Amino acid sequence: MTATIDGGARGALLIDALQASKPERARFEEWRKGGIGCVHVTLAIWETARETLSVIGEWNRLFAANKDLIELAVTADDIRRIGASGRTAIVFGFQNTSPFEDDIDLVRIFHKLGVRIAQLTYNIQNHIASGCWEDNDTGLSKHFGRGIVKEMNDVGMLVDLSHCSERTCFDTIEHSSRPVAITHANPQEFVGLEIELKRRNKSTALLKALAENGGVIGLSMYPRISKGGSNATLDMFCDMVAWTVDKIGVDHVGFGTDYYDGWPDSEIVWWRTGRWARESPVPIANKFTLWPDWFKSPVDFPKVLACLKKRGFKDQEMARITGGNWLRLFGDSFGPRN
Amino acid sequence: MTATIDGGARGALLIDALQASKPERARFEEWRKGGIGCVHVTLAIWETARETLSVIGEWNRLFAANKDLIELAVTADDIRRIGASGRTAIVFGFQNTSPFEDDIDLVRIFHKLGVRIAQLTYNIQNHIASGCWEDNDTGLSKHFGRGIVKEMNDVGMLVDLSHCSERTCFDTIEHSSRPVAITHANPQEFVGLEIELKRRNKSTALLKALAENGGVIGLSMYPRISKGGSNATLDMFCDMVAWTVDKIGVDHVGFGTDYYDGWPDSEIVWWRTGRWARESPVPIANKFTLWPDWFKSPVDFPKVLACLKKRGFKDQEMARITGGNWLRLFGDSFGPRN
Repeated sequence: MTATIDGGARGALLIDALQASKPERARFEEWRKGGIGCVHVTLAIWETARETLSVIGEWNRLFAANKDLIELAVTADDIRRIGASGRTAIVFGFQNTSPFEDDIDLVRIFHKLGVRIAQLTYNIQNHIASGCWEDNDTGLSKHFGRGIVKEMNDVGMLVDLSHCSERTCFDTIEHSSRPVAITHANPQEFVGLEIELKRRNKSTALLKALAENGGVIGLSMYPRISKGGSNATLDMFCDMVAWTVDKIGVDHVGFGTDYYDGWPDSEIVWWRTGRWARESPVPIANKFTLWPDWFKSPVDFPKVLACLKKRGFKDQEMARITGGNWLRLFGDSFGPRN
Repeated sequence: MTATIDGGARGALLIDALQASKPERARFEEWRKGGIGCVHVTLAIWETARETLSVIGEWNRLFAANKDLIELAVTADDIRRIGASGRTAIVFGFQNTSPFEDDIDLVRIFHKLGVRIAQLTYNIQNHIASGCWEDNDTGLSKHFGRGIVKEMNDVGMLVDLSHCSERTCFDTIEHSSRPVAITHANPQEFVGLEIELKRRNKSTALLKALAENGGVIGLSMYPRISKGGSNATLDMFCDMVAWTVDKIGVDHVGFGTDYYDGWPDSEIVWWRTGRWARESPVPIANKFTLWPDWFKSPVDFPKVLACLKKRGFKDQEMARITGGNWLRLFGDSFGPRN
């Protein structure tokens, strides 16, 4: 673990553990301006296996056309090398297991195609797990759910629990033989229950279990899951980082902005309802994007880092929070199990 | 080229450039008994992209369960290494472009999943090319057809023309920037026009063009495309090898048995008609498999080699015919273009 943390301190590699923008050059340029060495991107929310192949095809076109800015990373070493070259390493991920359909063999196939992170479910219940917007929280399913977690553990695909239910999170931490991630959520105790999407945030007990298991949470500036909502300030975000580090330790906290841009409004309806509903179970924001003045886009990341530094985080702590912790977890997760 | 041929001579690696059996351990054991170092297998005839993912999933299960007998090869070096270990190297291929559907990006995606050979069409016309059972031979289509050939050239996927029409073969040889293959067919001039599936065999002019382009043909023992049909003898097969070597040179002839076993009769109906016909345009054999006494299965390969040797082929010629030519072509074809 020391080697990775030292590496992080030397390179100060900045990692954003979730963005869901429409992939296009304007975003890649923002990443460069913001000094981001690695972004975990979303290939699928409700997409089927076949649809996801075309999403990967589109990314392959983008990799060929934007070699000066981005490259696919499938190992932690890839991330270090690409970040050191002044470009941004892309980590492929799913925010749902929909691309696996009902076929456990597809975990290995998408891993071969570069996918390294998958969230078990997106908001609602599926055959694998329960989501954070269900009232009847059934947790990780006994058969397909546990089987998929084992398959992901075996193949080397990191389990993401961000939009999963509380019980799914606890069940998965129990059944996973490798550390898991919450790539983009905030601590419920710090943020409070007054915000619109309170169900997306995680209990302190859960965050402690995550850390004990070796996992990492990515904290988000998304106003709808932040203290103060649309009035959230940069100081409040830095308070949240300090609060979370205090609760679960500096080795288990990172960034996961949940930033998105470039989509038409219809994309948000797709995220909320897929093909399975006529009305959204989740309140849809009035405006498409409501990012705060101090984080209008990932270009503003240096402001966040400066604020954290001013608050007294030491260099080695900064290196862990800004990327070292994700790099350690990715390094421990992305290959087949020893 | 010398290096590969010498390598072939030393190792005498035996390659069968097409089999289409149901994949199961009984077949892998036959390959061992027959001393076959590499088999090009068929993943798809009419399968869609999604269906083909499940076929690859099934192969991944077989690789895990039969490590003592088989391993996937994606380079010529893989083939040499696996063959030298006393096991059989599997080369993934399609007998149709159906898994690419209408999406040129899928060539790269299936290449990433290990597919190294694809036939442009299977018997009939599709959006890419005309097949050997069409009367109106339209050749390689100007837009999608030429585009797919260029994409396969760029990515490193060998074009197979076995079931394509005469004009498709000539067009593709003209438009392909890399050598192409006829993995399983016989010379029409030698075999004659009395056999049932005469359309499957290739003209001498075409075979010469193939060779001039650096390609290789795999000769088959399948009675329905062989001289004498069900009365074909081993001597007649060896005559055909000698005849073809005489016409196009010893560097362009190999084996491609077209052997298959293990399927229910319904599979043959699937091959003939897919989902697109109610009656087969190709006569379906009365019996599922009608292999000759001297080649009941690939276990009998040593008989074929002994016959060829007796006929006077020198060691270095034997090494080219039995595998060296395929190894050279695979080595020149399976990586991205320089």
